Amino acid sequence: MPLFERMTVVGVGLIGGSLAKAAKERGLVGEVLGFGRTTANLDVARARGLVDRVVTSDAEAADADLVVLATPVATCESIARRFRPHARPTTILTDVGSVKGGLVAALETAWGDAARVVGAHPIAGSEAAGAAAARPDLFEGRLCILTPTPRTDPVACERVRRLWTGIGARVETMAPKTHDRIVARISHLPHLVAYALVTAAVGRSEDGRAVLDYAGTGFLDTTRIGASPAEIWRDIALANRDAIAPALADFRSALAELERLMAAGDGQGLERALAAAAAARRALGGKG
Amino acid sequence: MPLFERMTVVGVGLIGGSLAKAAKERGLVGEVLGFGRTTANLDVARARGLVDRVVTSDAEAADADLVVLATPVATCESIARRFRPHARPTTILTDVGSVKGGLVAALETAWGDAARVVGAHPIAGSEAAGAAAARPDLFEGRLCILTPTPRTDPVACERVRRLWTGIGARVETMAPKTHDRIVARISHLPHLVAYALVTAAVGRSEDGRAVLDYAGTGFLDTTRIGASPAEIWRDIALANRDAIAPALADFRSALAELERLMAAGDGQGLERALAAAAAARRALGGKG
Repeated sequence: MPLFERMTVVGVGLIGGSLAKAAKERGLVGEVLGFGRTTANLDVARARGLVDRVVTSDAEAADADLVVLATPVATCESIARRFRPHARPTTILTDVGSVKGGLVAALETAWGDAARVVGAHPIAGSEAAGAAAARPDLFEGRLCILTPTPRTDPVACERVRRLWTGIGARVETMAPKTHDRIVARISHLPHLVAYALVTAAVGRSEDGRAVLDYAGTGFLDTTRIGASPAEIWRDIALANRDAIAPALADFRSALAELERLMAAGDGQGLERALAAAAAARRALGGKG
Repeated sequence: MPLFERMTVVGVGLIGGSLAKAAKERGLVGEVLGFGRTTANLDVARARGLVDRVVTSDAEAADADLVVLATPVATCESIARRFRPHARPTTILTDVGSVKGGLVAALETAWGDAARVVGAHPIAGSEAAGAAAARPDLFEGRLCILTPTPRTDPVACERVRRLWTGIGARVETMAPKTHDRIVARISHLPHLVAYALVTAAVGRSEDGRAVLDYAGTGFLDTTRIGASPAEIWRDIALANRDAIAPALADFRSALAELERLMAAGDGQGLERALAAAAAARRALGGKG
């Protein structure tokens, strides 16, 4: 017997589509409905077998055991509010948003039945986007953070946990605010930095040569996530700006210290600072 | 007939070792001598067949058709000065340093015979280091920038060019200052940013959880070059600080603008800025 008889995925992109396909392949869901804004993307989702059926009305979409919101963060609350009147009394609402604090609170209010709202954030993905990029192994070995609140029903939380562990993810639980502060530093800040690095190079030339023509693997690695969809990251940056601000301040301080050491010609101090960072980075190893 | 009967590589690390091995495999050099500070690394170089012989005196090392300096930038000038009395009248001196302006000028002076100094910078490599990481295909399809000056003998420059094209690199020629301004933006700035990103995360915890434990592929990609050897990057940062400073300033402005848009809650402006960067980054494609 599947964990959920029917699951609706709202936003069948990289994350939603990968979750749908993985859950279907593992027999964790009986039927997967796809719902979204863009017909062309939903056609791809169906053609690739990510979803069983595409539905187009809120009423059809909300009639499920589990509704997964996999759309940009700023859209989640209004979708929850629209779906609520059509949902079953037992429908569990979850999401995959990269920000949890404000979002989970908003979803609890919008959904009415706060006990059946389970915030989730799979730390996976790439700069790729859309149903065409979805793949069922995306979450294997990856971390998925669940952020239940005091209002969350432990049984609902456990069912969502089993969905994620069932498709190969490691699941960890923490408070929404803790989640937001951690990802501000290890995900949101690096994204903003990558966008800014590209911005600082775009259109620049030296002696008639476009500097971006000389980008090597270093630049490409460092800026890879700067190709991520702007709409998604606009929402994340705005929703988590309170946690991002101190992370940005710490980053600016670290960079300013390197610049100070350079300007002072302090080779020893500079080497010490770079070596400490390099050792910490090496300890993290290769691919996450 | 090989391009160079005998080539000495000073510093048989990732770059020097890869060049040595590739040149040997392609028959571009008759004999390769290895010279360096660290016996253990030279043992690895010989065991892996990167060099034919290890030499330990300046006199033996300088007795070659081509001397390649592949050591940290700050060490090159003094090595050139030490080698000069032992070199042949025809010995060509080249290097692989990531900074060219000041270095090439210093090498021209130290070598005396400025015509036979050819600055080179292969834009390849990784955060790995040492003879153990060397591989003969490292430069295939990669760019190598040559920076001849008005004093450089065109024949010497052409021979160095044929060495690099012979091992699969694309070669481009430009003035040392132009090179330095370009790599400040597409290589040196990203390195400093990567080190600073790691520094801003090291040792931080939220609610008892170390934030680095949650690093995903995004953080790891963005900071990969932050694992690069501190000694090498100390020298590069100091040698090219004049060109790095304006690149850093532009980066800081781009980041500050994103922060301003976030603080103002300007979703439209933020999306526009992120979308412009994302489009430019996507245009660069994947691996360099």
